[in-house]
Amino acid sequence: MKLTEAQLKQFDEQGWIFLPECFSAEEIAVLRAEAEKIFDEDREEVWREKSGAPRTAFAAHTYNDAFAILARHPRLIEPLEQLWGEKTYMHQFKVNAKAKFTGDVWQWHQDFGVWHRDDGMPEPRAMNISVFLDEVYPFNGPLMIVPKSHKHGVLEAGHDTSTTSYPLWTLDEPTVERLIDEGGLEVPTGKPGGVLMFHGNIVHGSAGNITPYPRKIVYLTLNAVSNYIRTPTRPEWIAHQDFTPIEMCEDDALLNFARSYAKAAE
Amino acid sequence: MKLTEAQLKQFDEQGWIFLPECFSAEEIAVLRAEAEKIFDEDREEVWREKSGAPRTAFAAHTYNDAFAILARHPRLIEPLEQLWGEKTYMHQFKVNAKAKFTGDVWQWHQDFGVWHRDDGMPEPRAMNISVFLDEVYPFNGPLMIVPKSHKHGVLEAGHDTSTTSYPLWTLDEPTVERLIDEGGLEVPTGKPGGVLMFHGNIVHGSAGNITPYPRKIVYLTLNAVSNYIRTPTRPEWIAHQDFTPIEMCEDDALLNFARSYAKAAE
Repeated sequence: MKLTEAQLKQFDEQGWIFLPECFSAEEIAVLRAEAEKIFDEDREEVWREKSGAPRTAFAAHTYNDAFAILARHPRLIEPLEQLWGEKTYMHQFKVNAKAKFTGDVWQWHQDFGVWHRDDGMPEPRAMNISVFLDEVYPFNGPLMIVPKSHKHGVLEAGHDTSTTSYPLWTLDEPTVERLIDEGGLEVPTGKPGGVLMFHGNIVHGSAGNITPYPRKIVYLTLNAVSNYIRTPTRPEWIAHQDFTPIEMCEDDALLNFARSYAKAAE
Repeated sequence: MKLTEAQLKQFDEQGWIFLPECFSAEEIAVLRAEAEKIFDEDREEVWREKSGAPRTAFAAHTYNDAFAILARHPRLIEPLEQLWGEKTYMHQFKVNAKAKFTGDVWQWHQDFGVWHRDDGMPEPRAMNISVFLDEVYPFNGPLMIVPKSHKHGVLEAGHDTSTTSYPLWTLDEPTVERLIDEGGLEVPTGKPGGVLMFHGNIVHGSAGNITPYPRKIVYLTLNAVSNYIRTPTRPEWIAHQDFTPIEMCEDDALLNFARSYAKAAE
């Protein structure tokens, strides 16, 4: 799947693109079911909130067949090859739970700031792509992004290890306020299957979720192969060190998997 | 100001009424400026988050002229006299800050549950009326209400003294999930000056606010005079013990005050 001229222009100017219903209900159903199973597992890749609720399952594509297909899907990989003009590899892969009632906040941050400081990634030629597994409402802790903030490069940040159970390089309040004054705030919402792509320097965050609606999303972080990380400090399953270019699967691979999965469950 | 037949019907069936732009920008400006001054004061009625940010200023109508007028305003008092069929008095009056960046969560609760358990209020013949002082967006910690939940009477609750700096009788997750399955979730948003009225048994809560947009609202809790509280346990400035019926001011009293206030500032 290729991005249109209008989408490329929006990405350049605003720093983000939203593709509603990029995956079908049938394709998403299998991912959602598998995500729930993974969150129930007791393994080091599954991180939890202080409450014990799941927060993030890292590297699910390395131990789950459905997510392994998603990690090679042309609707996600091809636009990135188009943008970077070269092959990509998977820098990070995670399923964020934002559990019902207890899903915790993600403070304002830039992803590339984290990849640069913690992993030694040279340039912001990597990008987060999020795939909605549940309906994202305005009120269940949606991702909030600050348009145009990617034009400011890497902003100064402090290492927040206290707010939540996940240490993060976060921005200070005056910086966030200035950027939102300038670019506003976008809160993409919509049905499961929507896909949000945003520049590695886009400032974003999300509030807690006190509703009974979980808001699971998958994050693929795809990095241009030439931009591989130089000085990793995090475990391999958080910041991968296998820089092999991704070979895409067929466009109907996930659908076929979903159908045989449903058949097996009959 | 009287409620219409349609509004009375909605209140009976759904448990809430929203009146957009009930107060003008000119009227709200003076309340917002005075609220900011009050939040800067060091007094026992002003409660703070763990971060030090203001959370709630109780009884502001007893020590601030602008809020004293709001507390007698016919656009708020008259609908309640109409609903209860008798005079009302002020049970509680507070300005909630929901400060930018740090505004904390209010867990799911019913107000009457608190008034009944903590103050000995006999019947749910009291109601919260909230007046928006800032724009309420979907993303700055808006009040979320569960329509029709007022039909269930007082639900069992536990005393939460740990989540936030304000102890509250809160509902358990399965109960909230069941009620939202049944009635859905409403999130009234809009410009400063909007007024939200909801039944004392409506289940409601609000998420934290990580945006740079504060979300100050005033809460008037008006109680039918015959329903005065029997066994108060909280300080007088949290649950008032002066049951004198409110004498309404003129409809233009707040506007006139705002104009003389603006003149004095010239």
